[in-house]
Amino acid sequence: MSQGAASAAVVSVGNELLFGETLDTNAAWLGRKLATLGISVVRGYTVGDVAEDVGWAVREAIQVADLVLVTGGLGPTPDDLTKVAVADVLGRDLVVDDRVRESLQERYREQGMEDVPPAAYDQAYVLAGSDPLHNAEGTAPGIFLRSDETMIVLLPGVPRELEDIVSGSLLPHLERLQRNASDRVWHHVIHTTGIAESRLTALVEERLADVPDEERLGVRLAYLPDLRGVDLRFTAAGPSRDDAFARISPLMQSIEDVVKPYRFESDSGDLAEAVNQILREHGMTIAIAESCTGGLIAKQVTGIEGASDVFSGGIVAYSNESKIDLLGVSSADLAEHGAVSETVATQLALGVADLMNSDIGIGVTGVAGPSGGTEEKPVGTVWIATSLGDEVAATMCRYSGGRAAVRAKAGQAALAAVYRRLVDATA
Amino acid sequence: MSQGAASAAVVSVGNELLFGETLDTNAAWLGRKLATLGISVVRGYTVGDVAEDVGWAVREAIQVADLVLVTGGLGPTPDDLTKVAVADVLGRDLVVDDRVRESLQERYREQGMEDVPPAAYDQAYVLAGSDPLHNAEGTAPGIFLRSDETMIVLLPGVPRELEDIVSGSLLPHLERLQRNASDRVWHHVIHTTGIAESRLTALVEERLADVPDEERLGVRLAYLPDLRGVDLRFTAAGPSRDDAFARISPLMQSIEDVVKPYRFESDSGDLAEAVNQILREHGMTIAIAESCTGGLIAKQVTGIEGASDVFSGGIVAYSNESKIDLLGVSSADLAEHGAVSETVATQLALGVADLMNSDIGIGVTGVAGPSGGTEEKPVGTVWIATSLGDEVAATMCRYSGGRAAVRAKAGQAALAAVYRRLVDATA
Repeated sequence: MSQGAASAAVVSVGNELLFGETLDTNAAWLGRKLATLGISVVRGYTVGDVAEDVGWAVREAIQVADLVLVTGGLGPTPDDLTKVAVADVLGRDLVVDDRVRESLQERYREQGMEDVPPAAYDQAYVLAGSDPLHNAEGTAPGIFLRSDETMIVLLPGVPRELEDIVSGSLLPHLERLQRNASDRVWHHVIHTTGIAESRLTALVEERLADVPDEERLGVRLAYLPDLRGVDLRFTAAGPSRDDAFARISPLMQSIEDVVKPYRFESDSGDLAEAVNQILREHGMTIAIAESCTGGLIAKQVTGIEGASDVFSGGIVAYSNESKIDLLGVSSADLAEHGAVSETVATQLALGVADLMNSDIGIGVTGVAGPSGGTEEKPVGTVWIATSLGDEVAATMCRYSGGRAAVRAKAGQAALAAVYRRLVDATA
Repeated sequence: MSQGAASAAVVSVGNELLFGETLDTNAAWLGRKLATLGISVVRGYTVGDVAEDVGWAVREAIQVADLVLVTGGLGPTPDDLTKVAVADVLGRDLVVDDRVRESLQERYREQGMEDVPPAAYDQAYVLAGSDPLHNAEGTAPGIFLRSDETMIVLLPGVPRELEDIVSGSLLPHLERLQRNASDRVWHHVIHTTGIAESRLTALVEERLADVPDEERLGVRLAYLPDLRGVDLRFTAAGPSRDDAFARISPLMQSIEDVVKPYRFESDSGDLAEAVNQILREHGMTIAIAESCTGGLIAKQVTGIEGASDVFSGGIVAYSNESKIDLLGVSSADLAEHGAVSETVATQLALGVADLMNSDIGIGVTGVAGPSGGTEEKPVGTVWIATSLGDEVAATMCRYSGGRAAVRAKAGQAALAAVYRRLVDATA
């Protein structure tokens, strides 16, 4: 109903979301997907498997958004009541849709069953006056309808089914919503790692204090911290990406030098992608020896498409024996300095690069906790070494947080160290 | 305001949540934490960094819940406006709290700064009549206040800060909310893996069809699917866990035999935890050779506390050379059958168990995609082998979804295979 850019509201249905047993990745995915289409999600509602609560959220959402997406509660189980609740709010009947019924029958016949089981047959009911949206990944179709000025879409809660419907049969409807191009919202994100949010904020805001409001041209800046680093997100409205970027660009330049030492380039915001990319540009390969991170860094590097071109291999060396036997770490050094030490990290990096015949080696050894800490080396102590040919650099870090946080931060720091070395080697 | 068990509503503030750039892990964590205290989250609201929207959500939340938790927008940056919005809704002033001001000054003095920077000084302002909640992990304190019958709590959006405050200074307030013990809600969860939701639902509902409503004693059952498997969650209200479990137990028994082949025991629902536990019970160790999963399985196994007792080591063997040189895979077999084959998976499992001197070996090799598929071995084809001493079992799986989904499903299946073998060995 808003006059500006098209707006959306997301209603997420499911007790498991309220109880926190499932993360609402669907709402986040929809937020990102709609943003690429110039549609802003302005509000989210999470309700349990209670018809009145679903009805309340849909009534509220219709009042603030052009597009209302309801996720979850479309399946064949008894707690799936989204259709009933929405039909009630809109005063519509539930009717059998012949196309859905036939495709259900076909699907079950393919599985060798004579007819659709009664529970699954519920899926053939749709709201009167609605269009079913084809679901290539499952049996529950999406449902599309209009009520006055508002588009209402019901989607299954299984992520790959929801994503299939939105990117497939729903897409043409969404593209029709992009009607007011002058108000599309554009983002430009700078990714940083290795600097605390408070410190980055202080540095950036100090620079921006010199830029008067009228020179900011409506550009907004947000700081988005997580375990991996802090993203700076610039936002501007405008008819095209170029137009918005022309206004964002001067602000970015005014903070360029304070951000540069922490910045990395990656479309997804994933530092492992940035490392893969810069290795590919240099035609280099990497090998990873991990103790406390236990395979986490190799998992991240190999999570990127085409990693086999740049990743030569990894060793998860938990025991002293594997460090000595496989990676050539000196048993005397292990005895004298302990596994969590500069010399062992260094030998791990050199050893794995040698073993895997790789240009670059990473060696990580630390105390992830919760036990194993000492006064000298408390939980969170991690040595990170990176080798480039024969040259090795090692750093000691102390991380707070639990086992998962220490491992995640150590992995991020190791990737950041490799990235920074390769950027500096080019500069 | 509700008369039954204490209820909560969570208001999540931040454009990054609506845009989907950050997952709302805080809301999920709060849902789980409050459930352990017998407080049910009944509604969630997600709004952007817009004062009116924050105000709307808080007004709505006060009407449906005894406890309103507002997360995000408490930091030192200009888009942090939660305090202003809530003060406006409640008609209260913002006043400097001397304790917060002093602790801020102390913190900055420790960092060698003479005074608190103006931006950070905003954090000393709290709502009139509220109590600050100590934040051991950061500078922004939580804020606790009462408005009529409702408790309202403002929390920072950084997860570890939020968790520190809730588990620390907020906890006594929450415990006071558990006043109506007869209505506490209890859950019992059965974790399964290796069976599709639709199939599991059909099997379970067929059994439960024989149980008349009056014998269900108010127990509800929900199916919670994700990439890792399907959880069955039983829910019952009652004065104690024992009382609720006494009613849940007969229903569980009636489905026991259909669930058993897929069930695993783990407090966290993490199969890697179940594998660590059963290895520990048997006094056995595991070693892992991964190709397409790239370290993911080792990362999961080592993510569990005390993994060093049961995990002997891992190899991420991406290249044929590392499979041959490190793990003794036959180059003739690689040439004849290809890297994604039963014989290579088998040799990987045996090879890594031998190399790491381990009781059990896992070998995983597959096509994670998006490229690398062939007609015979399309993307998603994965061979998984597990060895126990000299005995090896191997299975081929075909997974749908993208690279991340194929890797996650393959990792889960490999852990499930080890778990099932050890359970069967005991039975």
